[in-house]
Amino acid sequence: MPDFATRPFATRLVETADAVEHLLDRLLSPDPGEGEIARPARLLAAMRHAALGGGKRLRPSLLVETAALFGRAGDGVLRAAAAVECLHCYSLVHDDLPAMDDDDLRRGRPTVHKAFDEATAILAGDALQTLAFDVLADPLTDGDPAIRATLVLGLARASGIGGMAGGQMLDLDAERDPPDEAGIRRLQAMKTGALIRFSCEAGAILGRADPAALAAIRRYGEIIGLAFQLADDLLDATATTEAMGKATAKDAARGKGTLVALHGISATQKALGELIAEAEAVLKPFGDRSATLIEAARFVAARQK
Amino acid sequence: MPDFATRPFATRLVETADAVEHLLDRLLSPDPGEGEIARPARLLAAMRHAALGGGKRLRPSLLVETAALFGRAGDGVLRAAAAVECLHCYSLVHDDLPAMDDDDLRRGRPTVHKAFDEATAILAGDALQTLAFDVLADPLTDGDPAIRATLVLGLARASGIGGMAGGQMLDLDAERDPPDEAGIRRLQAMKTGALIRFSCEAGAILGRADPAALAAIRRYGEIIGLAFQLADDLLDATATTEAMGKATAKDAARGKGTLVALHGISATQKALGELIAEAEAVLKPFGDRSATLIEAARFVAARQK
Repeated sequence: MPDFATRPFATRLVETADAVEHLLDRLLSPDPGEGEIARPARLLAAMRHAALGGGKRLRPSLLVETAALFGRAGDGVLRAAAAVECLHCYSLVHDDLPAMDDDDLRRGRPTVHKAFDEATAILAGDALQTLAFDVLADPLTDGDPAIRATLVLGLARASGIGGMAGGQMLDLDAERDPPDEAGIRRLQAMKTGALIRFSCEAGAILGRADPAALAAIRRYGEIIGLAFQLADDLLDATATTEAMGKATAKDAARGKGTLVALHGISATQKALGELIAEAEAVLKPFGDRSATLIEAARFVAARQK
Repeated sequence: MPDFATRPFATRLVETADAVEHLLDRLLSPDPGEGEIARPARLLAAMRHAALGGGKRLRPSLLVETAALFGRAGDGVLRAAAAVECLHCYSLVHDDLPAMDDDDLRRGRPTVHKAFDEATAILAGDALQTLAFDVLADPLTDGDPAIRATLVLGLARASGIGGMAGGQMLDLDAERDPPDEAGIRRLQAMKTGALIRFSCEAGAILGRADPAALAAIRRYGEIIGLAFQLADDLLDATATTEAMGKATAKDAARGKGTLVALHGISATQKALGELIAEAEAVLKPFGDRSATLIEAARFVAARQK
């Protein structure tokens, strides 16, 4: 059996996705913990629909790989990875709601409000957000409460008005009043960038990174967030609904600005190349150990769905 | 100026409400913290609409009074109190949504989705939930990260599928399939009881209560939650919309079971009396210092709006 660290990122991504799926299945078990009240069946089913059986699990994977850079692995790291995924899934459930993006399809399956109903979807998103903080604050995630409190605070900053929720608000505003390039960058940094950056940062926090290393990983996380968004905009401009498992070409249809629309496809591809080069530069101090994270950057930039 | 501890609960409630209002106003300031991205104006306005300018602030007050029982007061305690209120306000915003209880009026003012729109209301609720965890996890709330992590975990348990969100799901289920008495009690323990209990518990956690004292305060919090719900059901059965500042007699109109409907008004009033007696018994070990918490129990049981 080859050493885990030497396997390619794409293989490790699938392994992490399996491990996170398994853990989410346990966290969303009908059988609650000792002393807990039995979980309402319909809400649990909706949360499972939202969180299980799909997704590349990119954010958990970034967390796992960043923690691995600092020699950290195991159940606690996976729990933090699952927490980040819960938060991501909550945002998808709410973004898909009729009052928001009104999407019927997600990961090739009906969205939660389609499979259940709107009220249940709102509550499932709410409870998935809560679960993310629950999992992070639990001693099972890390024995050191200072680490747990730091993770909770970081996730909250990535998620709230200054992060994902704020970015979704700007995205809704953008339909009424298209932003300029600075506005698009701010929107994207908040809506998708903040949680991707935190996913990387969380691995470094769990790995007890020193301040310089933490700063490098933060910048790496920002780069990944930017690359992810550019790749997403490219896909939105070019891919089909069938290949993506969700509606595409929606941004253009809604008149929302993207950097692809502003600068064109080839300039965007060039920008992606520059981001990968910057990721390599930022990770240089870590030497060969950072090979997987550089691969991850390439993977994100080149993704086809 | 009389000593704070000797003033009646009703006076202290108003003082705590003022202090919490002031702190929430600062937490929801348009000027973000250093290094933070500027906050989207529309989302911030909706969060302010939801969190400011109304409410008795009962939960914050219970937290402040419980902390005071253990000699704890000050900015950190107020921050935890404000966090609990943020979580409460988030739940009101989402419960009021058209897909949920579809209420137009709250605290005598238009609900958030009426004053803004549905998407903004969903996001405002989402971001208020996040803010609650943000505030609790921040070192400003308590210097000891173990205390902060414990508070976060407790709030998450009170809020998620095993708490408030789960209770709201059961409440929606109840419209289709009216629960029996055990079902009503479970629903109420989750929907309103869990957060009220946690508000008391959080004061004891901040106050470094020993396990026996913590257990007593937990039971006190359960009693307050039960009393609050019985008083609420009595009010729903008897009060007018004008006096309450929100729609009333809705439970009966929707065929939802309440303990008042099952047992009648006078039996419910008797049950409230028994709860107050139990609160006194539970707090006996604390002697005279618990006078304010006993007053709080009476206040909750007798409230007229």
